[in-house]
Parts: sequence; C-alpha cells; structure tokens
Amino acid sequence: MASAAGAQPVPKTCKVILAETIAKKLLQEARETLASIQGPNAPRPTLAAFLANDDPAAVQYASWSKKTCEENGFNFDLRQVDKEDLEEAIVAANNDDTVDGILVYYPIWRNNQQQDRYIQETVALHKDVEGLCHTHLFNMYHNIRFLDPPHNTKKSILPCTPLAIVKALEHLQIYNPILEYGNRLFGKTITVINRSEVNGRPLAALLANDGATVYSVDITGVQLFTRGSGIRQPRHQVHDKPGWGLKDVLPLSDVIISGVPTEDFKVPTDLIRDGAVCINFSSHRNFDGPAVKEKASIYVPSIGKVTIAVLLRNLVRLIANRPRPEGTSEAAEKARNEAFKDG
Amino acid sequence: MASAAGAQPVPKTCKVILAETIAKKLLQEARETLASIQGPNAPRPTLAAFLANDDPAAVQYASWSKKTCEENGFNFDLRQVDKEDLEEAIVAANNDDTVDGILVYYPIWRNNQQQDRYIQETVALHKDVEGLCHTHLFNMYHNIRFLDPPHNTKKSILPCTPLAIVKALEHLQIYNPILEYGNRLFGKTITVINRSEVNGRPLAALLANDGATVYSVDITGVQLFTRGSGIRQPRHQVHDKPGWGLKDVLPLSDVIISGVPTEDFKVPTDLIRDGAVCINFSSHRNFDGPAVKEKASIYVPSIGKVTIAVLLRNLVRLIANRPRPEGTSEAAEKARNEAFKDG
Repeated sequence: MASAAGAQPVPKTCKVILAETIAKKLLQEARETLASIQGPNAPRPTLAAFLANDDPAAVQYASWSKKTCEENGFNFDLRQVDKEDLEEAIVAANNDDTVDGILVYYPIWRNNQQQDRYIQETVALHKDVEGLCHTHLFNMYHNIRFLDPPHNTKKSILPCTPLAIVKALEHLQIYNPILEYGNRLFGKTITVINRSEVNGRPLAALLANDGATVYSVDITGVQLFTRGSGIRQPRHQVHDKPGWGLKDVLPLSDVIISGVPTEDFKVPTDLIRDGAVCINFSSHRNFDGPAVKEKASIYVPSIGKVTIAVLLRNLVRLIANRPRPEGTSEAAEKARNEAFKDG
Repeated sequence: MASAAGAQPVPKTCKVILAETIAKKLLQEARETLASIQGPNAPRPTLAAFLANDDPAAVQYASWSKKTCEENGFNFDLRQVDKEDLEEAIVAANNDDTVDGILVYYPIWRNNQQQDRYIQETVALHKDVEGLCHTHLFNMYHNIRFLDPPHNTKKSILPCTPLAIVKALEHLQIYNPILEYGNRLFGKTITVINRSEVNGRPLAALLANDGATVYSVDITGVQLFTRGSGIRQPRHQVHDKPGWGLKDVLPLSDVIISGVPTEDFKVPTDLIRDGAVCINFSSHRNFDGPAVKEKASIYVPSIGKVTIAVLLRNLVRLIANRPRPEGTSEAAEKARNEAFKDG
C-alpha cells in the first residue's frame, strides 16, 4: 500500500482476545479473595458437581472444571448419580458442611424442563453456585444486587455464563468505569442472539440493567431490553419489536454476542458494523472467523474458560456470604465485606 | 419512583467531568517526566509567550497560563511586542538558549491570515510548543508520529487544543487501551462541530487517524474523515457529504465535540443520542447544560485547563527531543526516549 514516508505501519485492526486471558485474571482474583477471607491453613473449599445425564459435552466440561478447580486450590467432587436419586443426593449435599457449593449438569430430563427447574430449586440458596435458585434469578431480573437489604452485605449470585460475558465486557473496557457503578453500559447498543432461560434472557436483562440498549434475538423475533430514555428506570423493561430481525439490529450494535447452539448458524458478516465487538458463547462458531476479523475491532471466539472461572468466583462469594464463624478476625470480616467489590 | 424492595437506587445518569480533573493528571505527568529527563537542580524551563494583539481574551488566557506554569515548575515569560517587531523578536528567541519553547497569541493580523501563517512558520521547529510549524502539521495530517524516521526517537508535536481533546477522550476511556496503539478509536463515531485550521480540522484528522469515523461539521456542510472500511488506510481520507447536516450525524454519534465560537449556537439536544459523550471546547457554552445532562452519559463543559496542561506537556516533549547534552546519564537518556510513552 502506498503511504507517506515515515507513516506508521498499519497495525492489525481486529484484536482477538482469548477466554484464557480473561479467565486468568478472574482466577487470580478468586484465589486472593478466598485467601483474605479464610486466612492461612484453611481447608480447600469443595464444589460438589452432580452428573445425572450421559451427555459427553457435560463429561468434557466436568473434566475441564475439575482441572481448573484443582489448579486453583479448590476440590472438585464429581458425583455421578442416577436421575431418580438426584434429588436426595442434592439434599444430602445441602446438609453436608464439607460441601461449599453445588453444581448440577443440565439438562437432566430432556423432555421435561419443569422437572429440571424443580431440581434447580432443590439446591440450597447458600450453596447455589450457579445462581439458578429462584431468589437469585428474581434478584437478577429485578436488578437487586444483595440478598440482605437494607444491610447489603451479601451479594446475590449471578448465573455463570451471563456473568462470564459481563466479566469479558469489563475486561474489554466496554463497561466504562468513568460512569457510576450500575450505569457503565449507558450509551452502548448490544445485540444478544439467543434468548434461552439459562443464558440469553438473563444476559440481556443484566446488560440492560447496567444501562445498555439490548436487542435480544431468537427464532421467534426481536425484543428490546432497556431502562428507557436517560436510563431513568431502576431496572430493564422488555418490548417486542414485531417485524424486526438481525438486518435491523446488527448495523446498530456496538457489541454482538451470539450463542446459537447449532453448527450451521453464522452471524451475517455484512450486517456487522465496522469496528463492532463480537463475542461467541456457543460451543459452535457463530461467527465466520476470518471474515469477522476484517470488520470487528475485538473478537472473542469463545467464553467457556471464563465461565469456569466465574463458577469459582461464585463459590468464593458463597463462602463470603456465610454467617461469620465465631472468632472471625477483623481482617477476615473486612475481606468478606469487600469481596469482589464493584462486581 | 415505584421500585421493587431492595432494588438499587438509580444513580445519576450523566457524569460531569471537569477540565481541572483531567489537567491535574497531565500536569503531574509533565512534572515527573521533566524531573526524570533533567535530573535534580536543573534550571526551570522557560516558555516565551508573545502577545502582539490587544485581545482581552488572550491577556486572560496568558495570565492563567502563567499561573499554571509557575505552579508546576516552569517560567512563563510574557513578552508584549508591537506587531511590526514580532518577527525579529521570535527570531531572537529562536536563537536564545535560555528560551525552551515559544508561544504566540493569534490572531495577530485580523484581516490577513496569510501573515499569521507566516509568523507560525517563523517559530523554530525545536521551540514550536504549539505544533503549528508546517512540519508538525504535515506529520499530524499524515499520521506520522516521529520527526526522525526511521529512528523514531523524537515525537512530533501536536497542536494544543486538539491534543487536549484527545487527552480528555483518553481520560474518559473512549480510547480503548485493549486495542492497538493507533487504532484505539476504531468503532467509535464522533461529530466535531467546527472546522477551523487551528482546532476543528486537525482534531477531526487526529481522531480519524486513531480509527474513528468522524463527521466534521461547519457552516459550509459536513465532511467525513475516515481510514475507510476496516480502517485499512494508514491515514484518514476526507469525503464531502453533500446535503448532510447535524440532523443526520448527531443521532449516529457516540461522541459530540463542539467548538463554535458564538454565544447563540447550541447543539440541538433532541438530536443527541441517549448515552452520548458531549464535550464543549468553545469559550461559549455550546450545549444546553441542564438538558444535555438528561441525555448524555458524560458531559465535559470546557477544555481550557487541559489545553494549558498540554502546552507544558509539549514543552517537556521539546526538551526530550533536543540533542543530548554531553554527559547525559543513562537514566536521563532512557527517560527521554520513554517520555510520554504511548501518547
């Protein structure tokens, strides 16, 4: 390319950020926070993970989780149980003081989502590391950040994949720390492709609660999640956008987050705005990698490792939320209250 | 406002950032960089400022500059001279080793911009603290960042007000440090209202060179400054947008920067996008303050104090650029090479 003598060489325009880079920072924070809460010589916290299906993806995910747990000072206790024994096994873990957090691999009953929902509610609130108990979900949708108002010392748990994406957006400096905490996405337009109850809908709600204008897209159409003009509402509201599709929302979007669980879906590159931030959280590649790098300013090809880091972060949060044991030092008390401040 | 029990109180949505806050950080950096270059017991650097008009605004600005200089360890030598003696006075200062930088208050010949331009060129390149010599301007427009390619040890000087606005945008985290240096505005759409040769045009060029899509607006119309699709060009190109106006560009803009030097001009609030960043660099208020705070995410009501801080920063840069005196210590040599790294 012809250029004036001495002109800067053109740097690569798209920055690819790997989940591992983001996860590393979160894991360090989790380790440090745990150490400051527990003090030295405390036992390793234990995460009990229940596997009651034969999904090979879940088995794979469990083995990654185990590795990350053990490398970072946590026990990962994988318990393979029969579907029919699952409820009792969870109740036993709820009552077992050596279990600090409980994780369940879903779906269990593939054709009965209600029964999966019942199992989610069986996990004790104070061991719900995935943030799937109704109280946690209710707080998230209502932008209520603490479990114990008005004292506000115990942070409510957020679901792992949506929180992992929030943490990724913080790392990418899409959250602007110059703005007030709770408003740091004000001015940003974000499209989320996927509106599942586990991932896409809570994610759209979280981002809109933090001030963004969010277009939530699935095969049924587009919904707008927003705190309204001047973000004057305390939490998001949802409006249908009849007749709208990707062609309407992608060209408006500063950030595009896609989690469509199929091999053949691709975000149409020609609709992506020049300089947009693109994040894939599907286990399939929802973006055409080489093409997206010609258009995006930042591309995050996967998020799984961040999700595992957030799982440990949530576990440390649960430990910080527990009633103070007698003889808790002042330093440990302070560490609990300040655990993961501003997030 | 009705809200769920325990919901977060709604924080103020618009963050007002004062020039003073931004200037303070830059002044500290200038002092520290100077100290690391010069070592202890060095004489105070001297800025010679030539006033050859009777503009009360210039006199006022000179008195602010003097105060800031002296508070930060610089001498400010205001020299009031007759228009007809100005050229000789500048030449004398060029040749005077006790003068480190030269500043001239413009306009001098109100009806002869060519003659002002001639005076700008009279200032020696190595004392041009305002970045108005042709070599500095050429480098800025061509996105050439150093005076001595290919060694690239001497940074080219940028004009003060445009650079002050760049520094403000860095402070506001509109520049995303996750992206490569030189591309950190990629994905941002910015409107600059004012296309003067001293402020608006260089500003639009700087922002576009850093990756933004910039709409430059003045009474003659709108121009687009951009490095093109995927910011693949090494420097900005300019395209006329016939028939376009504020109504077309403001609703698209993440950032609106206005510097219209009249009392009666106001940026139409209803055209500002919800959550936009609004910056005024006119000495008049170009935004309707109370109304803009209902819409913007960030509002910077003035920039003057940042401009003065940038003047001192440029002066330190000139000192760092000078041929190394004999016996320069290794530490001072390193400090020179690293002065204001990444900016």
